[in-house]
Amino acid sequence: MDHDTVTQAMQPDESPELRALYKGFRDNHLDPLWTQTGDLMPMYPKSEAIPHVWKWSTLLPLAEASGDLVPVGRGGERRAIGLANPGLGGRPYVSPTLWAAIQYLGPRETAPEHRHAQNAFRFVVEGEGVWTVVNGDPVRMSRGDLLLTPGWCFHGHHNDRDAPMTWLDGLDIPFSHQMDVGFFEFGADRVTDYATPNFSRSERLWCHPGLRPLSQLHETVASPIGAYRWEHTDRALTEQLLLEDEGHPATFGQGHAGIRYFNPTTGGDVMPTIRCEFHRLREGTQTSVRNDVGSSVFQVFEGRGTVVLGGSAQKLEKGDLFVVPSWVGWSLEAETQFDLFRFSDAPIMERLGFMRNQVGGV
Amino acid sequence: MDHDTVTQAMQPDESPELRALYKGFRDNHLDPLWTQTGDLMPMYPKSEAIPHVWKWSTLLPLAEASGDLVPVGRGGERRAIGLANPGLGGRPYVSPTLWAAIQYLGPRETAPEHRHAQNAFRFVVEGEGVWTVVNGDPVRMSRGDLLLTPGWCFHGHHNDRDAPMTWLDGLDIPFSHQMDVGFFEFGADRVTDYATPNFSRSERLWCHPGLRPLSQLHETVASPIGAYRWEHTDRALTEQLLLEDEGHPATFGQGHAGIRYFNPTTGGDVMPTIRCEFHRLREGTQTSVRNDVGSSVFQVFEGRGTVVLGGSAQKLEKGDLFVVPSWVGWSLEAETQFDLFRFSDAPIMERLGFMRNQVGGV
Amino acid sequence: MDHDTVTQAMQPDESPELRALYKGFRDNHLDPLWTQTGDLMPMYPKSEAIPHVWKWSTLLPLAEASGDLVPVGRGGERRAIGLANPGLGGRPYVSPTLWAAIQYLGPRETAPEHRHAQNAFRFVVEGEGVWTVVNGDPVRMSRGDLLLTPGWCFHGHHNDRDAPMTWLDGLDIPFSHQMDVGFFEFGADRVTDYATPNFSRSERLWCHPGLRPLSQLHETVASPIGAYRWEHTDRALTEQLLLEDEGHPATFGQGHAGIRYFNPTTGGDVMPTIRCEFHRLREGTQTSVRNDVGSSVFQVFEGRGTVVLGGSAQKLEKGDLFVVPSWVGWSLEAETQFDLFRFSDAPIMERLGFMRNQVGGV
Amino acid sequence: MDHDTVTQAMQPDESPELRALYKGFRDNHLDPLWTQTGDLMPMYPKSEAIPHVWKWSTLLPLAEASGDLVPVGRGGERRAIGLANPGLGGRPYVSPTLWAAIQYLGPRETAPEHRHAQNAFRFVVEGEGVWTVVNGDPVRMSRGDLLLTPGWCFHGHHNDRDAPMTWLDGLDIPFSHQMDVGFFEFGADRVTDYATPNFSRSERLWCHPGLRPLSQLHETVASPIGAYRWEHTDRALTEQLLLEDEGHPATFGQGHAGIRYFNPTTGGDVMPTIRCEFHRLREGTQTSVRNDVGSSVFQVFEGRGTVVLGGSAQKLEKGDLFVVPSWVGWSLEAETQFDLFRFSDAPIMERLGFMRNQVGGV
Repeated sequence: MDHDTVTQAMQPDESPELRALYKGFRDNHLDPLWTQTGDLMPMYPKSEAIPHVWKWSTLLPLAEASGDLVPVGRGGERRAIGLANPGLGGRPYVSPTLWAAIQYLGPRETAPEHRHAQNAFRFVVEGEGVWTVVNGDPVRMSRGDLLLTPGWCFHGHHNDRDAPMTWLDGLDIPFSHQMDVGFFEFGADRVTDYATPNFSRSERLWCHPGLRPLSQLHETVASPIGAYRWEHTDRALTEQLLLEDEGHPATFGQGHAGIRYFNPTTGGDVMPTIRCEFHRLREGTQTSVRNDVGSSVFQVFEGRGTVVLGGSAQKLEKGDLFVVPSWVGWSLEAETQFDLFRFSDAPIMERLGFMRNQVGGV
Repeated sequence: MDHDTVTQAMQPDESPELRALYKGFRDNHLDPLWTQTGDLMPMYPKSEAIPHVWKWSTLLPLAEASGDLVPVGRGGERRAIGLANPGLGGRPYVSPTLWAAIQYLGPRETAPEHRHAQNAFRFVVEGEGVWTVVNGDPVRMSRGDLLLTPGWCFHGHHNDRDAPMTWLDGLDIPFSHQMDVGFFEFGADRVTDYATPNFSRSERLWCHPGLRPLSQLHETVASPIGAYRWEHTDRALTEQLLLEDEGHPATFGQGHAGIRYFNPTTGGDVMPTIRCEFHRLREGTQTSVRNDVGSSVFQVFEGRGTVVLGGSAQKLEKGDLFVVPSWVGWSLEAETQFDLFRFSDAPIMERLGFMRNQVGGV
Repeated sequence: MDHDTVTQAMQPDESPELRALYKGFRDNHLDPLWTQTGDLMPMYPKSEAIPHVWKWSTLLPLAEASGDLVPVGRGGERRAIGLANPGLGGRPYVSPTLWAAIQYLGPRETAPEHRHAQNAFRFVVEGEGVWTVVNGDPVRMSRGDLLLTPGWCFHGHHNDRDAPMTWLDGLDIPFSHQMDVGFFEFGADRVTDYATPNFSRSERLWCHPGLRPLSQLHETVASPIGAYRWEHTDRALTEQLLLEDEGHPATFGQGHAGIRYFNPTTGGDVMPTIRCEFHRLREGTQTSVRNDVGSSVFQVFEGRGTVVLGGSAQKLEKGDLFVVPSWVGWSLEAETQFDLFRFSDAPIMERLGFMRNQVGGV
Repeated sequence: MDHDTVTQAMQPDESPELRALYKGFRDNHLDPLWTQTGDLMPMYPKSEAIPHVWKWSTLLPLAEASGDLVPVGRGGERRAIGLANPGLGGRPYVSPTLWAAIQYLGPRETAPEHRHAQNAFRFVVEGEGVWTVVNGDPVRMSRGDLLLTPGWCFHGHHNDRDAPMTWLDGLDIPFSHQMDVGFFEFGADRVTDYATPNFSRSERLWCHPGLRPLSQLHETVASPIGAYRWEHTDRALTEQLLLEDEGHPATFGQGHAGIRYFNPTTGGDVMPTIRCEFHRLREGTQTSVRNDVGSSVFQVFEGRGTVVLGGSAQKLEKGDLFVVPSWVGWSLEAETQFDLFRFSDAPIMERLGFMRNQVGGV
């Protein structure tokens, strides 16, 4: 039996009684399963979200134009431009669970402090000069860094330089909005500390490999690390490829290095709803097609290559972003050494028992 | 600052440049945060779902009429009438995460076997005579019983009697649909075993208090128990109230007994997305107002009382159902001894770090 | 190279300098590895404990004689006769981790209340009439019941009848003593409650299959259940063998039913150091030889059979006890239906990563 | 009642019948509780182990003398001199659970490969030039480094230099021996790789703060990190004291910095039975008296100070070692900046529910 004809199979014959029944349903806020389309319980995930690529060469000028035209401050809170998945009806959701936005902060500007139940991170594809202040701890933002502002931490941003800065914001806003879990609180209109240290206090406490402070021995729901620095990420990837060259198991796949950012108090994901990873492909590497439950967003950090999304190939350059909706097949091919940041909702899928993966397609 | 005026605060002045910028956004599938209404990141959860009561005296005749007019079988799969939250735009969702439906199976009918990633249970407010076959194990359905069909277990139903039967189905369909995690597979057109044993094999293996079979020592994501029998639930609640009478701590609150159905392999919830509980209030008991993140559905099993939902009181009788959306205050008052079954999405909220509760209102 | 010659291989030549060195070691509380026998780090566990069988027909008369000659009360605390493994140098240890004792309480006697860090249980091979009071909750002791008194719970016993009663006590005294973890506190000289209810409050709260009280939702290190009743154990084993007869997977091995007593708050062992199980073999069943890291004690509850311990067979009858030291091969053969209670230190081995098992010998 | 008189309280009167009873016990490998001394179940842990200090100035010359007189190689396996607690009857146990030894490897010597269930580490108080090869991965040993060889990893050592080297070995040999969990297997007579890289492959894969390789996502019972380098430890401690100076919470106590070495796959201890920490006290800092269940060994890494052990003070210098048996009060006072490495059996106590701590004495 073809699934598309499923719901037809059981349709009752038209009659006055049936019309009365259906009116009774409507009048009483009821909705019979047998009139639902097959989409409610599909054979496999068929997201309304669709695969899509956003070009950095398009995004950046629009962000810059926003900087000229749109103020930043209390109220709007952030000059953030959300990637709106073309399949999701105009909502500012890059996928059903994830928010991805380009945030732009002009010279000497401040984005005021607030906090929310939603988990957030920033990833910096280029630029420098902004500090994010998380619960009073100023965190430098530089190229290649991942910065965390987990749920219910106060945070604001300020630009200490005469040049603007643009970066990627990732949050679980769509998930939080649809699941009704959001809380929000305003903080200081300015950031609470305009210091510009090279390293945040969280890094100074936590970023020593394999060592944790005796004063902080409890498990925390999100990572206590405020910034994961590019220097470390780059070195980790470099070492994996060198180890592969030397004949030792280290890479995720042949020619494919990868790290997952983790919460040192648990060994698990950095935040309960968002996984963050960084992938590096050697020039010429082509990955197998994968299908994963849940959605991912990638941003090209460096290099050139191609992504095949649901069978359709697209060229990618530095800064380009793409979304992979649930169960859409994806693979990468590297034209040069190819570096990509990735974030996803995989922790949701794994913690709730829904994760499935398929490698090599069908 | 009033939150409702938030987004106004940052609105840029109208200009040709701004119009061009907004066109650029639209053309490139972008959506700025500062044009979002405050609803995207509310001060506290403000669900589109609204509190609502469905009366059993209305539901049952409509279910019975469906039995006459609508066939059951392959395709539509189930004669299930979903409770459609009036705030959720006509979708058959009782809340943003939960599905609740009245299923009706006529005399000697069979609902064919299938399986899906979605987690499901049945709760029986009245009647008997149907067996649910879960992975080949026939499970009797009787008044007061909770039956589980966790994700990816094959299941079908058949009515062994000359009378119809109606029960409550609960699933995580809305969650699964919005999160794109659903898989589905058809099974046998008939159920695979028409035996009608009093107890399922799962009960014979697992329903011995504090004892687990040596052949089944691994953790499972969902409970291996096919049916939680009314006899046990009733006795547990009775004992709690007796212990309270004897002066010992046992009840959830004064005059308020309660049990949570649990997975014996972990001590946790019966399924990764759905919590099931049963509450009994002594006559005259009035509970404090509670606000919980996440949504719940209650069905009155026996007795009469009142629920106050978001400040508005409604009388309840046997079979009546109501939904409590996220962070809507709720309290109960018992006119007689008052028994209610409850299910919720609390495991989602807890596993992802979003749970908050407030007792006593503000 | 033969392991027994290991330490010889490296022995230095005798000389005045060597004698001076060894004197320097002795004078300074040092002990060189190369003079140790191979026993310190054996090729596989070679316990000083040896397999041994204690006959009930011998134990019971000695316990009864103690009842006549030895008072019970504050100070000695318990009229308990420990099984002393013949390999452990006269210490009252049945194995390096476990204590097993026969406790005898005369008519109308009371064993006073106390508490200790050590975990304890009682298992009743015959008799009735004693109540154990655990943190003020009186727990009836009857044939086939397992009773828990986890670490730091106050407990005392009193005999409500005119006949004496004898039972098996199991504790982690040897482990606790060697690891220096013991704390002890005297309680009331009498028990705090002389009531003789059929069921303890802990059972009334917790012994409803798959249900836990809403007032007790936190994990506890030990099971909250005071008594696991024979009625449930017997039914669970009976059902497993019936299911096997019907062709369904249920037993631990062919003709070999078994249950593990568990902590309903976690699904894990009843206490952090002690595992409790019950095994039933059909007449004629012979189990494979098993080797397990850690030690076990079995007591025959009913029936007749043979145990092969380290290659040597011994006949067993009701009440007989035997110990299986670490890594000693053991198997059972049932002459009649053969019921055995078992306890072990397996949770220690599993939680610390040392567990290994081997089935079928070498 | 005084505890020391406990067992007297219940002693039966001498009589021919009692003598016969006691003979019956002896003949049948039984041992009554009432004849045990109070030590079996003490009021609080009273270890047979006693607090003791070993002076480096004594240990080192003895180790060097061993280098001249005792060969190293297959059989004896290691030129290791165990610290024998004066209270433990001449066994080479520094405490009831822990082994601590000084290992000495002469110029160009090799200690052959083997593996065992016991968990081991090395800590280097001075020197360099030796590589430990763990499962084929050569790990450099330098001053201040902690090296792991968890249970069942093959490991050998070789000295690549013309100078000898001495270091501290820590293992769970006493625990493993008493609990009968040991397995042992010989490996290559030489080490399998004589390369002398600056960094092991495990470090190159794992020692990037907050990052784990995508190829290694499973939890492991022990840390995958082969070496925790002094450079990182020193920096972590330095930062904690700087943060304290700046007014931020970071230290374990006023003037007392500390780190715990951890397993990045879990956030927990480096091995299931052994905890490793490093403490740094500012000059003049005095810690509160602590009592902990379980035993610890400290080695002074740098600086001078005093330890008070069970009320008795002793001066300490670089290299000195001391043991704190279970529940013995200890405190430190720093004459200069005072750096100490510590290892303990705390993971055993915590995993089995026996841990208690008391700060500030009684």
